[in-house]
Amino acid sequence: MLLEKLRTDVLEANLELVERGLVLYTFGNASGISRDEGLVAIKPSGVPYDVMKPSDIVVVDMDGKIVDGTMKPSSDLHTHLLLYKQFPAIGGVVHTHSEFATAWAQAGRSIPAYGTTHADYFYGPVPVTDELTAEEIGGEYVLNTGVAICRRFLDPENGLDPEAVPAVLVAGHAPFCWGKTVHDAAHNAVVLESVARMAFYTATLRPDAQGVSQALLDRHYFRKHGEKATYGQK
Amino acid sequence: MLLEKLRTDVLEANLELVERGLVLYTFGNASGISRDEGLVAIKPSGVPYDVMKPSDIVVVDMDGKIVDGTMKPSSDLHTHLLLYKQFPAIGGVVHTHSEFATAWAQAGRSIPAYGTTHADYFYGPVPVTDELTAEEIGGEYVLNTGVAICRRFLDPENGLDPEAVPAVLVAGHAPFCWGKTVHDAAHNAVVLESVARMAFYTATLRPDAQGVSQALLDRHYFRKHGEKATYGQK
Amino acid sequence: MLLEKLRTDVLEANLELVERGLVLYTFGNASGISRDEGLVAIKPSGVPYDVMKPSDIVVVDMDGKIVDGTMKPSSDLHTHLLLYKQFPAIGGVVHTHSEFATAWAQAGRSIPAYGTTHADYFYGPVPVTDELTAEEIGGEYVLNTGVAICRRFLDPENGLDPEAVPAVLVAGHAPFCWGKTVHDAAHNAVVLESVARMAFYTATLRPDAQGVSQALLDRHYFRKHGEKATYGQK
Amino acid sequence: MLLEKLRTDVLEANLELVERGLVLYTFGNASGISRDEGLVAIKPSGVPYDVMKPSDIVVVDMDGKIVDGTMKPSSDLHTHLLLYKQFPAIGGVVHTHSEFATAWAQAGRSIPAYGTTHADYFYGPVPVTDELTAEEIGGEYVLNTGVAICRRFLDPENGLDPEAVPAVLVAGHAPFCWGKTVHDAAHNAVVLESVARMAFYTATLRPDAQGVSQALLDRHYFRKHGEKATYGQK
Repeated sequence: MLLEKLRTDVLEANLELVERGLVLYTFGNASGISRDEGLVAIKPSGVPYDVMKPSDIVVVDMDGKIVDGTMKPSSDLHTHLLLYKQFPAIGGVVHTHSEFATAWAQAGRSIPAYGTTHADYFYGPVPVTDELTAEEIGGEYVLNTGVAICRRFLDPENGLDPEAVPAVLVAGHAPFCWGKTVHDAAHNAVVLESVARMAFYTATLRPDAQGVSQALLDRHYFRKHGEKATYGQK
Repeated sequence: MLLEKLRTDVLEANLELVERGLVLYTFGNASGISRDEGLVAIKPSGVPYDVMKPSDIVVVDMDGKIVDGTMKPSSDLHTHLLLYKQFPAIGGVVHTHSEFATAWAQAGRSIPAYGTTHADYFYGPVPVTDELTAEEIGGEYVLNTGVAICRRFLDPENGLDPEAVPAVLVAGHAPFCWGKTVHDAAHNAVVLESVARMAFYTATLRPDAQGVSQALLDRHYFRKHGEKATYGQK
Repeated sequence: MLLEKLRTDVLEANLELVERGLVLYTFGNASGISRDEGLVAIKPSGVPYDVMKPSDIVVVDMDGKIVDGTMKPSSDLHTHLLLYKQFPAIGGVVHTHSEFATAWAQAGRSIPAYGTTHADYFYGPVPVTDELTAEEIGGEYVLNTGVAICRRFLDPENGLDPEAVPAVLVAGHAPFCWGKTVHDAAHNAVVLESVARMAFYTATLRPDAQGVSQALLDRHYFRKHGEKATYGQK
Repeated sequence: MLLEKLRTDVLEANLELVERGLVLYTFGNASGISRDEGLVAIKPSGVPYDVMKPSDIVVVDMDGKIVDGTMKPSSDLHTHLLLYKQFPAIGGVVHTHSEFATAWAQAGRSIPAYGTTHADYFYGPVPVTDELTAEEIGGEYVLNTGVAICRRFLDPENGLDPEAVPAVLVAGHAPFCWGKTVHDAAHNAVVLESVARMAFYTATLRPDAQGVSQALLDRHYFRKHGEKATYGQK
């Protein structure tokens, strides 16, 4: 079986989403990339999680052509592929309709960095994309979802570093998250949902809340990321 | 045992409602129809789910007369029967008091199509009925609950296609859902509750949220429904 | 062991509160009465639920004197006793700090009959008591909690039938529920929490919601209660 | 193994936080102190809870120097140590990002004593600290988090008794709780989250809610604390 380790990782990350309550029925999808081989392993479309096996994970090339596997890949495949092409440092992508993150996406609001939990993972607000145009929706919709994400991150003036902010809310749709590996991406999706939930409560308790200071954002983010990270056993 | 397969399906759909947290104690009911035989299999009234067997599922004819079974049918039977008569394409009906969908019903508000999760299942807002009149309540109340639903869907000017919008909120009461089979109906009830929950959060975060564009509604709905559906392994 | 059956029922009702998520740690208490013998069986104070046995349930007389048992009774004993004296038709009492019902009590708001779930169990709003005075709090506080409840129900002008509205919110405190048996009382406590939760969402979605009509209240309440009840297998 | 009993208690308290849903992944930390030996046992940094053993708990002296253990201590160690130094009556400290308490912290609002559940544990509002200055954040941040807490409690004019109010919200961050033992501290953290949840609902239902009277606060607090406590089997 081609890319057995990666497929197993992708399966486990998908199951992590189930265990953490982020997905309902066959909703959600996770993928991982082998940069050396230029191949992506992704969840099959509409298969129940409780019977999914590593061999059900579909391996495709960067054009989305199936290289190994008998199932159809996730219908969100072309969003994943574009993110891998445009964000060269990432190794995994996760998409869910987790309920609080999705509510922020449906409200068209980015999630402010209200506290240190957020700052530990996301170096600034989790942004929301612009809405897709009717032309983009009517055309290569799944690809264009990725285009809208990249437009937000790669904007020459107001762009964002996808490594520092490993999540986005697609307006009217739901979140996409990523990470160094597919496990990181799933972990970020789980934390995003907790952060989105706390942000909902915070915005209700104090509609004019301003979020953490730049100093606190820096302190917490760099506590867990970069060369001076101090968290954990490394 | 008459209609053994259908009874088993109806039992399983009822238990799906329990597992997904949509019902409390003996609340809720699911039914399925055999169109060829003109018979409906429905949950018995007030029986605990953990001891319910296929033989406890009551089989009735289209007038509600018991054809097979020793239990009394669900007290909502005549709402189910009217839906089967008026919506000829449906094969299953589910009624729950799931908490968020019920809250929208109690608030007398239809659930706007705020996002793609909604659009994947419901082609437009999930409507709320008008309130029943005192006469309707004092008369054949359970039947008239069905009448209020049909009035909303079969209105010559503002009617809705029950296949495209397989759910309704009965004002001051709770949701009814349906589908091609009783399993589909239960699945739609579970998704409706998730959609209702996200819509509650969305309306709180942005009271003037407008919901998805017609283009996005079309794209997502027809991704999963109709001849050009692309989701899943078919 | 005196009143073994009643003690077992009281233990089971207490455990029902745990299983349904209504109590945390040793919070909450349930009791049942044997009217013939004038004895009440009640949960001991501050004992962990997972080690509680029928013999730990304390049997007291109507003055609160321990008749059988080695433990101290629940610190809310004298509220229970007064309710048994003043509401002669009840056989069980339950007190919890279940979170949504408690929030309504803390807000000093009665829970409106917003829908049919409420009407199936409570024939009108679930009332909130007046706040206790400093004198009542400084004196026989637990007894006076019962006095405040009875003042609300037994008021000659605006009183309520405790059989028709088997629950109350003590202002700034939490709910008390009752029923024909301790099992009924626990069941009512579980439903009250669900009703309180849906009412919270409803009041958020529509602050001016008026609740169900008298006709709908009558229809649903008498569907499950009184001589013409049609729900269930009886 | 040094301080085996204390380490086991610290491990159990950490696991209690997991079981009660207060922590996600490796979030949160609990510690206990041996006053006689001047040693603190604390959770290691970033170790998954499901593989944590008593020997993984790190023992440090009051300067934070590791005395026994092979792991790095929690990154919040110096907040814990300062609390032990400044609050001589406490034996355990717990820090979580439990979602509702954190939301109040993120909103910069103290939690009012809205009801008796709160009064049973916290003798007055659970206070929020001032925000740390950029200098404090840029300097000994973890220590300064403790400084901000102590500033709030030990203020000569508006200070609070840490035994009577065993919790605090660090602005923009999350709660710290404490108690006579590490088990008490974890118990207080669990109750704080329930109290924070109910306070959120209460503030939504009645934005101008005033909370309990001094008389009710006294009655409930001293029912469980001090020489005249009547709750439980003692």
